[in-house]
Amino acid sequence: MITSPQNPKLKLIRALQGRAKVRRKENAFLVEGVRLFEEAVAANWEVRFVLYDRTLSERGKELIQSLEDVETEEVDSALLKSVSDTEASQGILAVLDHTLLPILDSPDFLLILDQIRDPGNLGTLIRTASAAGVDAVILPPNTADAFSPKVIRSGMGGHFRMPIISMGWDEIKDKVQGLTVLLAEMEGDVLYTEANLNQACALIIGGEADGASESARELADAEIYIPMKDKTESLNAAVAGAILLFEVVKQRGL
Amino acid sequence: MITSPQNPKLKLIRALQGRAKVRRKENAFLVEGVRLFEEAVAANWEVRFVLYDRTLSERGKELIQSLEDVETEEVDSALLKSVSDTEASQGILAVLDHTLLPILDSPDFLLILDQIRDPGNLGTLIRTASAAGVDAVILPPNTADAFSPKVIRSGMGGHFRMPIISMGWDEIKDKVQGLTVLLAEMEGDVLYTEANLNQACALIIGGEADGASESARELADAEIYIPMKDKTESLNAAVAGAILLFEVVKQRGL
Repeated sequence: MITSPQNPKLKLIRALQGRAKVRRKENAFLVEGVRLFEEAVAANWEVRFVLYDRTLSERGKELIQSLEDVETEEVDSALLKSVSDTEASQGILAVLDHTLLPILDSPDFLLILDQIRDPGNLGTLIRTASAAGVDAVILPPNTADAFSPKVIRSGMGGHFRMPIISMGWDEIKDKVQGLTVLLAEMEGDVLYTEANLNQACALIIGGEADGASESARELADAEIYIPMKDKTESLNAAVAGAILLFEVVKQRGL
Repeated sequence: MITSPQNPKLKLIRALQGRAKVRRKENAFLVEGVRLFEEAVAANWEVRFVLYDRTLSERGKELIQSLEDVETEEVDSALLKSVSDTEASQGILAVLDHTLLPILDSPDFLLILDQIRDPGNLGTLIRTASAAGVDAVILPPNTADAFSPKVIRSGMGGHFRMPIISMGWDEIKDKVQGLTVLLAEMEGDVLYTEANLNQACALIIGGEADGASESARELADAEIYIPMKDKTESLNAAVAGAILLFEVVKQRGL
């Protein structure tokens, strides 16, 4: 049982709770809680190691016992809590490899999240994209790190089910060749229900503070809008994204 | 200028930052930040008093100067920050009366938020409801307080534009007389796009942790669902609500 705060595994976890730079260097990220870790295991995600404590539920214990070739180790409960990012840690914390899931050669449904900085919004968009059957989520520069603990948490397993890839705009331009690129824009000129979403397309959602970047606007073939009761209103970025993603699903025959 | 932490206005603000019980007893709630306070003023909301500090922007100062018959008072900057709930307080904090906006005699678009406990989700649902033109938001027992600082913040002014009313289930039953009551339910049997939302209706969204209550299920005429890529997926409550609210908007002709 791990009882020292200086244990290297705990040190790594503390580091991974922090900055994106560290996660990139270590090529790893954290998953806390039974349900989320179950999602990772169900998706056959590469697990580096798992720490747990005596508060772990039966369901959690069974999950750990079902793992093959994965290092699992018990930790003093107060110590595990001290490195946890959640209020209710559920007694389980896993370090996962940051594997890149392969992106389809000819994707027909991409989501580009541009300058989304709120971790809750980013995670919710990833969760919604997965439920809508998006082929891949693409993150341009200036979007928050999708693998921070808070984004993972609100992603509810979406991270394990589809590729989420950071790219520069040149690479994105290349990737959307042959797709219609639609930018969500309050002041857009195409009503979202009148856009043809039944063709291969990439949808760009901009951040709440700054909207979409100049590069996103240049890439867009059309700017689509969601009508609101009056002009002073606006929608949360995750909400606008959800309405548009499920309009695509609907036009494609649910 | 207020310089004492014991000032009664600051004491009231500290109390209003806390529990719902206190807000109900005082019949008041807080609004922080220039933009949100602008929304309250634009809606002619009853303002009890406004505190500001020297960091207030020009736009904020003009707003304060435009107020008639409202008590405004400068506060020491560190002191205002100490009673603020936000990271960037913007130097303005207003105490507003908890006025109940009147509900239409024959509403044709009601949103019932049942057991929604996450303040961010509740605020986002209120914001989305306002943008979708909902006649009133109804809060059954066991839903979070809609007038807590965090809910007000994510509501982005939606609180000032439509009635938000707490009711017991008996009163709700009375209020939805003549309306079709639709419950959002992952395991529902009516595809949401096939429900007739062009008739007067009340939409019930349940909380993420516990779903909708027994009382909500009894009241519902139909349970509608949003199709997802596979059965393990789910949507955030605010996201599911948004998709359904804007399906109503769409069926009614945008």
